[in-house]
Formats: sequence, C-alpha cells, structure tokens
Amino acid sequence: MAEASAVAEVVARQLEGLLQAGNYDGAKLLLQPVQPVDSAEAIGTLPRTLQALAFRLLPKNEAIEVYEYLDGSVQQSLLERLRSGEVLELVEEMSPDDRVRLFDELPAKVVRRLLAELSPAERRVTAQMLGYEAETAGRLMTTEFIDLKEFHSAQQALDIVRRRARDTETIYSLYVTDASRHLSGMLSLRDLVTADPEDRLGDVMTREVMSVSTDTDQEEVARVIQRYDFLAVPVVDREQRLVGIVTVDDVIDVIQQEATRDLYAAGAVQAGDEDDYFRSNLFTVARRRVVWLLVLLVANTGTSAVIASEQHVLKQVVLLAAFIPLLIGTGGNVGAQSSTVVIRGLSTQRLQSLGPWRTIGRELVAGALLGGLLAVVVVPWAWTMGGSALVAASAGISLVAITTLAATAGAALPLLFDRLGLDPALMSAPFITTATDVAGVFIYLRTAQLLLPRLGGG
Amino acid sequence: MAEASAVAEVVARQLEGLLQAGNYDGAKLLLQPVQPVDSAEAIGTLPRTLQALAFRLLPKNEAIEVYEYLDGSVQQSLLERLRSGEVLELVEEMSPDDRVRLFDELPAKVVRRLLAELSPAERRVTAQMLGYEAETAGRLMTTEFIDLKEFHSAQQALDIVRRRARDTETIYSLYVTDASRHLSGMLSLRDLVTADPEDRLGDVMTREVMSVSTDTDQEEVARVIQRYDFLAVPVVDREQRLVGIVTVDDVIDVIQQEATRDLYAAGAVQAGDEDDYFRSNLFTVARRRVVWLLVLLVANTGTSAVIASEQHVLKQVVLLAAFIPLLIGTGGNVGAQSSTVVIRGLSTQRLQSLGPWRTIGRELVAGALLGGLLAVVVVPWAWTMGGSALVAASAGISLVAITTLAATAGAALPLLFDRLGLDPALMSAPFITTATDVAGVFIYLRTAQLLLPRLGGG
Repeated sequence: MAEASAVAEVVARQLEGLLQAGNYDGAKLLLQPVQPVDSAEAIGTLPRTLQALAFRLLPKNEAIEVYEYLDGSVQQSLLERLRSGEVLELVEEMSPDDRVRLFDELPAKVVRRLLAELSPAERRVTAQMLGYEAETAGRLMTTEFIDLKEFHSAQQALDIVRRRARDTETIYSLYVTDASRHLSGMLSLRDLVTADPEDRLGDVMTREVMSVSTDTDQEEVARVIQRYDFLAVPVVDREQRLVGIVTVDDVIDVIQQEATRDLYAAGAVQAGDEDDYFRSNLFTVARRRVVWLLVLLVANTGTSAVIASEQHVLKQVVLLAAFIPLLIGTGGNVGAQSSTVVIRGLSTQRLQSLGPWRTIGRELVAGALLGGLLAVVVVPWAWTMGGSALVAASAGISLVAITTLAATAGAALPLLFDRLGLDPALMSAPFITTATDVAGVFIYLRTAQLLLPRLGGG
Repeated sequence: MAEASAVAEVVARQLEGLLQAGNYDGAKLLLQPVQPVDSAEAIGTLPRTLQALAFRLLPKNEAIEVYEYLDGSVQQSLLERLRSGEVLELVEEMSPDDRVRLFDELPAKVVRRLLAELSPAERRVTAQMLGYEAETAGRLMTTEFIDLKEFHSAQQALDIVRRRARDTETIYSLYVTDASRHLSGMLSLRDLVTADPEDRLGDVMTREVMSVSTDTDQEEVARVIQRYDFLAVPVVDREQRLVGIVTVDDVIDVIQQEATRDLYAAGAVQAGDEDDYFRSNLFTVARRRVVWLLVLLVANTGTSAVIASEQHVLKQVVLLAAFIPLLIGTGGNVGAQSSTVVIRGLSTQRLQSLGPWRTIGRELVAGALLGGLLAVVVVPWAWTMGGSALVAASAGISLVAITTLAATAGAALPLLFDRLGLDPALMSAPFITTATDVAGVFIYLRTAQLLLPRLGGG
C-alpha cells in the first residue's frame, strides 16, 4: 500500500480536472469508492471556489461524514458558501462532538444563530457540551450511545441495537442504566451476540464499569482507554448519571496531539494546531517561536552578565574561554536527558512507582557518574590542546559539578511543576539547558579563579 | 475516577498481605473483579517468590490474558517457576502476537523447545511470524481473525461469528476471502447485524478494502488506522493472501512508543524499552546516555578548537567572550525549533503538501526574521552592558547569520536523513544545537575580527 495520504493527492488532482471540465457525473463516480477522510483531504486542497461544488456532489449521508473530517478553516468557508437550508441540515446531522468542535471555532454570533435553529434535543446536548471545559472528557465525548436496561433480554437488546445502529457512534460498547440514568453495568456486542437470546442483561453484563467524569482531563481519558484496551469509555456527570462515551478513535487523536505538544515544548516551539504550522504564513510562524526565544534570551543575558563580571579571570587566561561552550553544552545535554526521561515518565505514568525523591536522587547520581566519565575524556584532551594544567583542571572539576547540577535540576524542575499543577513540559530541554548555562559559566570561572594562584596562568 | 494505575497499587498491597497470611481464598476473591491489566501490574510488583503463587490463583481463561499483560521480565521468571505442563498450556493458549513478543525475549534454546511442543497449527503461525522483521505489520498482527465467504448469508455469517467469538481477537471487523484466500472484501459486525438475514455477504460487503502488507512498517500501519478511524486493518502477504489483522489497541501502543522514541531522540537519550528506564540500574542508565553525550562532546571539541585558534581576537577584546554563550545558545534554540517542527511534520505526514525545498526555504526566511527580531533586543543591551560598539555590532550581525544558518540546517538535515532512508529524529535538537555551536563561534569571532580595525577594541 502507498503512503496513507497519497490517495487523497491523486483524487484531488483528478477531481479538480473533472470539475473544471464541468464533468460532474465523472466527479461523482470518482468520489464514490473513496474513503470519507480522503475525500475530505482532497476537497480541502481544491481552490475555495470548487470546494462547495465538489461537496454538493456527495450523497447526503456521506457528506456529513466528509464534513466532519474537513479542516476547521474549510468547514467555515463551506458554511459561508452553502445555502442556509443546507447548512442547517448539515449542522443538525453532525455528531455532537464534531459539532462542538466546529462551534468552538465559529464566531459567537454565528454559533448563537445556529444553536437557535437546531432541534431542541440537539440544542440541549450541544449547549451542555459547550459548557464543559476544553480538553475534558465532556468535550471529547459523544452523546450518541446505546443505553439498555437490566430487564431487557439479549434478544430485545439485539433488536434495539439493530434499530439504533445507524445513528450511534459505536454499537460495540453497550451501557446499562437504571431508572434514574445511573450507569449500572456494561456489555460488549460480543457478549450480546454470544449470550443466550433469553438471558436478561442484568445477568450477563459486567457490573464493575470503569468510567470517567465530564471534567476528567483528556490525557487521563486516553490513558484509561489505552491501559485497558477499551474501544470506548463511559462518561458520567457529578451525579454519576451516564451522559456520553469517548471512543478510541478520538483518543488516538488526543495521544497524537499530546505527543506533539510535548515534542514542541522540548523544541521550544509554542504548541498550536499542529496541522497549521506548515500552512500558516511566516509571521504566524515567527510569532509562535519568538516568545520562547525571548524568554530564553533573557536567561542567556544572565550568562553574558556572569562572564562580563568575571572578565578579570579571562583576562589572565584567555584560553579559558575556549572551553565555555563545551562545558555548558555538555551540561545542557545531560540536563536535557534528565528532563526528557522525567517528563515522559510523568506523562506515561511510568515514574509513579519510584516517587519524586528517589527519581531526583537517581538523576543526581547519574549526572555525577556521567560527568566523571566525560571528564576522563575531556581533561587529557584539554591539557594536550591548551597546554595548560590550570585550564584542564578547571574544566574537569566544573564538568562534574555542572552535569550533576544539570541532571538534578532536569529531574527536579519538571517534578516541581507537576506538583504545583503546572505543565511539567514547560521545564523541558530548552529551559533546563539555558538555566544550566548561567550556573555553568559561574562554576567554571570561579573554579579557575580558585586554582589560579596554585597552578599559575596559561 | 482515580489515576489509571492507582487501582493496581492498592490491589498489590492487599494481595501481598493476603498471600503472606496464607489466605488464598481471600486473594482469589480480591482478584475476581480486577481488570486483567491491573492484576498483571499488581502481580508484577509482588516479590518474585509470591508471583507464581498469585498467578496460580487466577481462573485459567483470565490467567492467559493477565500473562499477556505482564512485563517481559516477569513473564520469563514465571516461566521458570511454573511446571512445564502449565508453561506449555499457557504458551499454547496465548495470542500469536503476544507469543511472538515473548519468544523475542527468551533465549533461543528455550524458544526452540517451546516451539517444538506447540500444536502444529500454532507452531506454523508462530514460526512464520518470527520470520517477519521487527516493527513490521507481520510482527504486530494477530492471525486470529474471522474470514467469511461471499456465498454466506448474513444469518450464516452471524452464526459463524457467534461460534468463533471466543477464540478471535476481534469480531467487529470481518473479512471475506475467495477460494485461494485472497482478500475480496470486508464488512463490520455493524453491517452484519443491520443486514437482512437472507442477504449474501457478496452483496453487502465493501469491496474497496484498505490493507497493509506483512512488511509494512508499524508506523505506517498506525497511520492507516488513525487516519481512517479503523478498529483493525487486514494484513496480506506478497501474493495478496489474507494472513492476519492488526487491531487498534496494538496500534495505540505503537503510537505511544514512536512518540517516546522521538522525544528521547530530541533529548539525546538512546531509546530502549521505555518501561525499563526507571527500573533499570544506574549503570544501564549511564550506558544509554553516555554514547550520545560522547558524540556531542566530540562535536563540542570543535567549538573549543575554533575559539582556541581565534584566541588573538579574544585577547584584544576579552568582553567578546561574554556573548558567546548567548549567541550559540540562541542559534541552538532556533535550530532546535526548526528541526522539531520538521521531524514532527515528517512523522505525522503534515509536511508532505509543502515538499522539501519549500520547507527549507521557509525555515531559512523564518530564521533570518527571528534573528532580526532578536537582534533588535540584543544589540542595544550588549552596547549598554559592555560599552563597546564593536562587541554590540559583532553580536548583532552574527546573531542574524547564526539563526539563519541554524534554521536552515535544522530543516535540511532531518529532510536529508529522511531522503537517505535514515531516521530523521537522529538530526534532532541536540545534534543541530551542537553543530550550530561550532559554526556560531566561528562566524562571531571572524565578524569581530573584520570589524576590529574599523571600530577599535573595547
């Protein structure tokens, strides 16, 4: 099979040709066997004027699915180009979670108008979901699930599933609620089809159901689904009533999004919608990068200030300057390693078994150990190259001090941020590296100054 | 709900108490409602001597599932503690994909013995899967899927599904093959339960089936499942015969694993089994980190050599040294940003639409733009702090040159590695940063030397 999105590219090229030639039946035939996500990507890459044209060629059922896969900006431009009747039908038929995602990006005025025109049931659900905080289970969930009762027989339940299969997100996870809509159990469609038709659901369902609440963070929802290999997890409100479910496909996107966020933090890039980066213009790109650069620059001016104030040491032995980048660079690398493993350990929860103090202690020892190993290489090399025992000794001693400090800070700062309820990824490599720089030059030049009278200048 | 793995911790503590008190019935009752993955984690944290004891308390069906969730090292130690009859039964009943994962870690001698004792069918499947390369669809897939025929009616198909539900990984994706086992279509259980019982599968199935081949890379398999919101994807061999399926739960683990790998690369940590890091001893930790540190150290010695050879410039104006860390630090940060967005763009395939040359061009312009913005801050500050026009001018000019170079290299090197078939993540932040250092000091000191006669020393 070719790369996943190559299909969309080919379709887009052919589609544009057919539309420009006015061959609408050809275009319709072309789109027929194409997967909705590929149709969406193909339509998204067409010139704006052709997008609405192509979209109208889709059969109604598929149009909604394709619309849900479109990028936010394409969705909006289509809303402006379609007739208001078409818009209303589209918005009414969308899954609640996709609708909420769309409404999040539309101007408040448009959202109010569309909300007012929705059917009462869809309006209630949408308004409720819009009330939950971003990146929580309440926002991620769909309210289209199948709930059954304990007194249903397996046969009755299967009939209900058949009837409702078309308008629910999944029929593979089925939930059982009591009279006041409290979640009392669940069963999979696998359980249902293998059960005796006469069995009551109350007897075949699982009563220990793992659920999340509407305000559970989306990362935690992803962890539950990943850990237990679920296809969906039920979402309950404060009164433990079942209000929705989160499905595995949405969770994969969350995992991807959180990984991008952590990677961007590790690269000092402000996270935004990841799909935007390569499409946004250069000024948006610069804006998303310059803030972090300025923050780090301020920290770097500290390094310059330290060197400037210790100039007298450098004036005596200029060669000392040659090893500054090496020392702070290595310190930065060791600190980056520690913060990387700790931040990843926090986010995958692998670190829990060790606890914060033992983690910091381990990294401290690892930092000293690594510094020692590297010093074995650096000291002889510095001595040979520079011909100065003072410089070599200063470099060796401060290397161990710097790597120890960097590893300790690299572990401690993300853990501190996590404890304070802040995002530990803020304390990732770039910040640790820059903070290490300031301390590193200070340690190095002070060490040299102390050794100076004993060993004599270079 | 509490954090996902808190359950396992509580269970482990209670389980250990019950086992030590000899209360085996109590332990059995305790484990009954616990999810297999939690039982596995709880058993994994017990002292080795109690693990086999606890494991034997599980009902047979659940024991296999729990075993599949255990860490590799716990699986191995259990194999040594169980009787050979128990071992054989366990290995025979495991899913083929989990069995292959276990065999990958066992000594070759043990694998040969176990293989010989498997039933012919399981032996054939396992030997075949062991023949596929690591991290391909062939290794990730399970051979337990349901294949149907075009001439089956929906009712017949449903009966087959019911009969085979217990021993297949999923019953929600169903595949239709012809007489020579070629994949001719697929349908979901949803399609099947909503179809008319009299319908032939040939009429209700989808004929356009997206499939991967046994040697497709696991990242690409993950992308297909993620992109199309599949619950499973079929795997075909070179002759297009259906040989297995990959399910969404395995793909989530791949996505997580690949994200960890990219993050570790960005933090200069050699990727291993991520769960190992916090459990492995300090020397293993040091070994996994020191290699990268040494590679980067070698690059850093280049920086030292450049400064040492340009000492004469520094001797004239020692203050120049004060801005070295700031300049190369900022250059490193800009380069890290570029390599981060490019590497992520390659791995999520967002970058495809832009192409390599335009990507590099964009980053070059972004680097120059960012350098210019930062110079506006740096130059006045350097002038004020150092009181030297020479130093301020050198810093400003070289800052723009360094950020432009860093951004260009940060985009170009990962793209080059990708084109060469190497892992672009090798060209992530630490490498780019270090490479920028060498070029950065060279540019800075040469610029200063050029300006020296015009502006005069500090």
